[in-house]
Amino acid sequence: MLLLLLLHKLRPSFTILSSSSYYSSSLSFLSSCSSYSDKKVSMATIDESSLRKALSDKQSALEAQGNAVRQLKSSSAATKPEIEAAIEALNALKLDKSSIERQLHALISNGEGAVNKEAFRQAVVNTLERRLFYIPSFKIYRGVAGLYDYGPPGCSVKSNVLAFWRQHFVLEENMLEVDCPCVTPEVVLKASGHVEKFTDLMVKDEKTGTCYRADHLLKDFCNEKLQKDLAISSEKAAYIKHLLATLDDLSAEELGAKIKEFGIVAPDTKNPLSDPYPFNLMFQTSIGPSGSSTGYMRPETAQGIFVNFRDLYYYNGSKLPFAAAQIGQAFRNEISPRQGLLRVREFTLAEIEHFVDPEDKSHPKYSEVADLEFLMFPRQEQVSGQSAKRVRLGDAVSKGIVNNETLGYFIGRVYLFLTRLGIGEERLRFRQHLANEMAHYAADCWDAEIESSYGWIECVGIADRSAYDLRAHSEKSGVQLVAQEKFSEPKEVEKLVIAPVKKELGVAFKGSQKNVVEALEAMKEKDALDMKATLESKGEVEFEVCTLGKTVTIKKNMVNIKKEKKKEHQRVFTPSVIEPSFGIGRIIYCLFEHAFYTRPSKAGDEQLNVFRFPPLVAPIKCTVFPLVQNQKYEEVAKFISKSLTAAGISHRIDITG
Amino acid sequence: MLLLLLLHKLRPSFTILSSSSYYSSSLSFLSSCSSYSDKKVSMATIDESSLRKALSDKQSALEAQGNAVRQLKSSSAATKPEIEAAIEALNALKLDKSSIERQLHALISNGEGAVNKEAFRQAVVNTLERRLFYIPSFKIYRGVAGLYDYGPPGCSVKSNVLAFWRQHFVLEENMLEVDCPCVTPEVVLKASGHVEKFTDLMVKDEKTGTCYRADHLLKDFCNEKLQKDLAISSEKAAYIKHLLATLDDLSAEELGAKIKEFGIVAPDTKNPLSDPYPFNLMFQTSIGPSGSSTGYMRPETAQGIFVNFRDLYYYNGSKLPFAAAQIGQAFRNEISPRQGLLRVREFTLAEIEHFVDPEDKSHPKYSEVADLEFLMFPRQEQVSGQSAKRVRLGDAVSKGIVNNETLGYFIGRVYLFLTRLGIGEERLRFRQHLANEMAHYAADCWDAEIESSYGWIECVGIADRSAYDLRAHSEKSGVQLVAQEKFSEPKEVEKLVIAPVKKELGVAFKGSQKNVVEALEAMKEKDALDMKATLESKGEVEFEVCTLGKTVTIKKNMVNIKKEKKKEHQRVFTPSVIEPSFGIGRIIYCLFEHAFYTRPSKAGDEQLNVFRFPPLVAPIKCTVFPLVQNQKYEEVAKFISKSLTAAGISHRIDITG
Repeated sequence: MLLLLLLHKLRPSFTILSSSSYYSSSLSFLSSCSSYSDKKVSMATIDESSLRKALSDKQSALEAQGNAVRQLKSSSAATKPEIEAAIEALNALKLDKSSIERQLHALISNGEGAVNKEAFRQAVVNTLERRLFYIPSFKIYRGVAGLYDYGPPGCSVKSNVLAFWRQHFVLEENMLEVDCPCVTPEVVLKASGHVEKFTDLMVKDEKTGTCYRADHLLKDFCNEKLQKDLAISSEKAAYIKHLLATLDDLSAEELGAKIKEFGIVAPDTKNPLSDPYPFNLMFQTSIGPSGSSTGYMRPETAQGIFVNFRDLYYYNGSKLPFAAAQIGQAFRNEISPRQGLLRVREFTLAEIEHFVDPEDKSHPKYSEVADLEFLMFPRQEQVSGQSAKRVRLGDAVSKGIVNNETLGYFIGRVYLFLTRLGIGEERLRFRQHLANEMAHYAADCWDAEIESSYGWIECVGIADRSAYDLRAHSEKSGVQLVAQEKFSEPKEVEKLVIAPVKKELGVAFKGSQKNVVEALEAMKEKDALDMKATLESKGEVEFEVCTLGKTVTIKKNMVNIKKEKKKEHQRVFTPSVIEPSFGIGRIIYCLFEHAFYTRPSKAGDEQLNVFRFPPLVAPIKCTVFPLVQNQKYEEVAKFISKSLTAAGISHRIDITG
Repeated sequence: MLLLLLLHKLRPSFTILSSSSYYSSSLSFLSSCSSYSDKKVSMATIDESSLRKALSDKQSALEAQGNAVRQLKSSSAATKPEIEAAIEALNALKLDKSSIERQLHALISNGEGAVNKEAFRQAVVNTLERRLFYIPSFKIYRGVAGLYDYGPPGCSVKSNVLAFWRQHFVLEENMLEVDCPCVTPEVVLKASGHVEKFTDLMVKDEKTGTCYRADHLLKDFCNEKLQKDLAISSEKAAYIKHLLATLDDLSAEELGAKIKEFGIVAPDTKNPLSDPYPFNLMFQTSIGPSGSSTGYMRPETAQGIFVNFRDLYYYNGSKLPFAAAQIGQAFRNEISPRQGLLRVREFTLAEIEHFVDPEDKSHPKYSEVADLEFLMFPRQEQVSGQSAKRVRLGDAVSKGIVNNETLGYFIGRVYLFLTRLGIGEERLRFRQHLANEMAHYAADCWDAEIESSYGWIECVGIADRSAYDLRAHSEKSGVQLVAQEKFSEPKEVEKLVIAPVKKELGVAFKGSQKNVVEALEAMKEKDALDMKATLESKGEVEFEVCTLGKTVTIKKNMVNIKKEKKKEHQRVFTPSVIEPSFGIGRIIYCLFEHAFYTRPSKAGDEQLNVFRFPPLVAPIKCTVFPLVQNQKYEEVAKFISKSLTAAGISHRIDITG
């Protein structure tokens, strides 16, 4: 900004307006957005449950009173005042019931909140599209669901965010940046597990063939039931809420059973639905002309880094820890994209893979972030129904809430990245994955969630994936993806040695000898020690050779198993991976919502929609315009504009006076 | 560099070495690369032709002399000295023939040049891969042909090149940058012509099914014939050369016929080959789960801009000219990728679409580039066998060699871009497309070609594509992609009016009336005027109604055709598009070759491979290291390193002393 101030002083007849705001006129709408509730982890509240109970009680009382009135009316003994009093009581009960219904309705639909949020989002999205921040892709052909273009100002914001990401992570942390292709051969994604497991469960309209996400249908049904059907019992409501909370854990069979149980049909046609079955979310293609080489558009950029581990480790002087980073497109063939700009079929990811010794997950720069304090939402607080609290990062790590220093370091760095971009710290929290959300191999996982009109949105995932990915690729490729720690002096270690006696095995198993030898050598330590004990006590043991598909009898003279002391000069191990993964489009969308507000125009006759961006992300940094219209000043304005361009500062020039 | 100088002065005990060079030791090799010949447009030279003639003459003389010797030997009249003289003459002829063969061989294989170029390229590529500028993608799985990763220094060079591109084009020219998805629905690429025409001709090994590019096989055969078979006549050589020059024009049938004529078989197996057939080079996929919505990975980024023309034009205040730009991945499923890093299956394109009034292709900043002088290679010079010459750009435009000012302006800007990146101007030329290279709709097209070990490589294409693309998408989408020129005062224009008389047509054609009316209204001006003339002279006319699939008789009373004068307030037209399209990967590869040289190590015992980059593209801008090893200096070195990082200057720090 130095240059701007300088120019300002030199040229008093010019104003250089800092114009990180975008103006746009539109209709008035409610912009209140401070009361967004947390959808993802909302728990059954006592209020709702007691209201449902009260409603149900009131309904019974109402029915009883109705019967009483009918009895009185048909009875010859009843006096007119008696009947009138009973009717009055009935009406009072009806009023009470309506009141409870209103309360309940307000509670479960967040009162005006939901309407306001929807209106706010519409205003943001309309302004974004009108001002060409986003354009639905291929709009003149009626578009494709889940694909969006960045128009000129959106593109500028995106490149500002990416430039800052490079500065904040790659440059400051000396990361090794790589740039791998999107087209990926099948073998890589088989190793990573994506071919088998990167799926969503789908159901088809049995008559039209239209596809739906099975969990979405069930979720919609449950939400609608809870919000519109006020008559359901509090037990039933609790049951449905529990179902909503555990939706992600349901198997295809369980989901199918629930869909049948509730009688859910195709929303558009009311036709019956097929059973749920997995649909792989990767865009599939074929590499080369033969049609025999299947490929996919990568679902994440991480795999490109893992397969290069060996070269990158060597490039880093065979030293740990180090981090590699990649920015690039990723693809996800969603069954039916929803949530507009948040759930799309193609998006930009920025991913870091930090490789670290599993026995030493300290971080040299940890102390630089340990004193940061921000909203954290550990597993424990989520299951006990509490909300996120401000915690000092260093305390979360020292108490073991965050698994290790390196994971903590990256949580801190992500916090700094997002808040410097302009995300308000009260609308940013770090939520720990629940046990059922995490992959079995993951040591710990935290999401940076940003509050938006859609609720709390996962924008960055920070996971300690242990050694899973490198091991998977080692196994599939046969190339060892490991690191070495050289000992300053050799260490004595005890090692198990399995020595098959080939001569005896040859006599016993003839052509199958090789399979038996290999199976013996491949035994795990525990199994080998068990075998040793059995051989010593009984002289023989039954042993399954899976490559032969049968069990053979091993005698004492066929194998020697013993522990030996050896000197080792180095330790060879598979590094752990700590992976911060950034959904750039989601971060940008949240930035847009946070930057948006409305204010009345000067004339007061309309509402203006404004994006107030921090300078770091603002698409236009300033506008140059002469305060007086004059040929001489125009020349100067153009000169200033040229100087700003040369300095790489995006701006507008306005010489209309 | 200011900061560096500053630090240098403040800290006399530090050296900050400008280290835009990468060192790597390897074996010695020839680095001579100043004599690359131009392969693409090489013409039959008189020398080669006369050598082939001389060789053929010498062969005849040799045979004749051989016969003479045999006759002398079998004749009883011949004396010994006579026979010896004849044999001597025969040997002399043999020597002459060998000499001509050597000359011819040297000429057609560029002598040592080809060997040197190959060795030079191998040294460059080896160093690039060893230093992780590039990594063959998915290397641990034995890679995929045509896919490469950028490793850390390569990635850094790439982002430097892209940052400069944004500065030089997007910022300086106020272009509207957009960012569209790679996944593209079929309808868009049908409109653009890619689904039908983006193909290469392929042949299959009839037994193994292995695929080859038909033109590559023919090209290889021809080149080998020319280089290895010295006995072919100069006529035959000329025929083969002509074939090589016109290879791109051959149809599938013609290519098939040539393959049969030469008896070309599968190179690996010698099996017979199938007839050539077109293979579409786009990676195909399916959007969404139904399988019914075909999509492709975009083969270029341009289409994303064209389909957004209407919004971008409006965003630009409905004013022409303006340019939109896009940087992004593009895909090409090559049949069998060759030429290493130059012909790949996924690459980064940077494209500009400059929209301009077809009646006014002047450019406001044209004068800024008109005086530039560089190597240009117009069509005329190519067909007449001359070479590229230095031409003043302004002269090329004013003489009409370059079609218009805007095209000329971009040629100039591309020249500045490439030379500022570090491409030597003597190894850069602008080659105009020959008539047979250009699409029928293109007004003019120039390639920026950079000389490399592969010959002259097309790195940037600069084409005036006229209104083709916008018209194609207007037609397919039904959305008018047009611009308006508002007249300062209304203009009187003569317009043709076709007024069908519905009553008469109804009586004559009943249910088909509507089709006839529409067909009449859709007539082109010339057809309508012809009909008017015929109706006036003969009273009726036969008229084909294609929607009815038959011809009807139109009588004079059924339609009124006349010219009317109308006042028009604006002109509506489809803009022309000038498209500079940059193959970023190719530019980077050429930069690497131009930056590469070898020098002996200080000890003189090995050759060092060095990349000397201009600061603009250098992956590491400088190295910080204390000249004396001392704890105090280490602290200062770290402080300097931190300051450099904060300023966004990539560097290394070396405190080993």
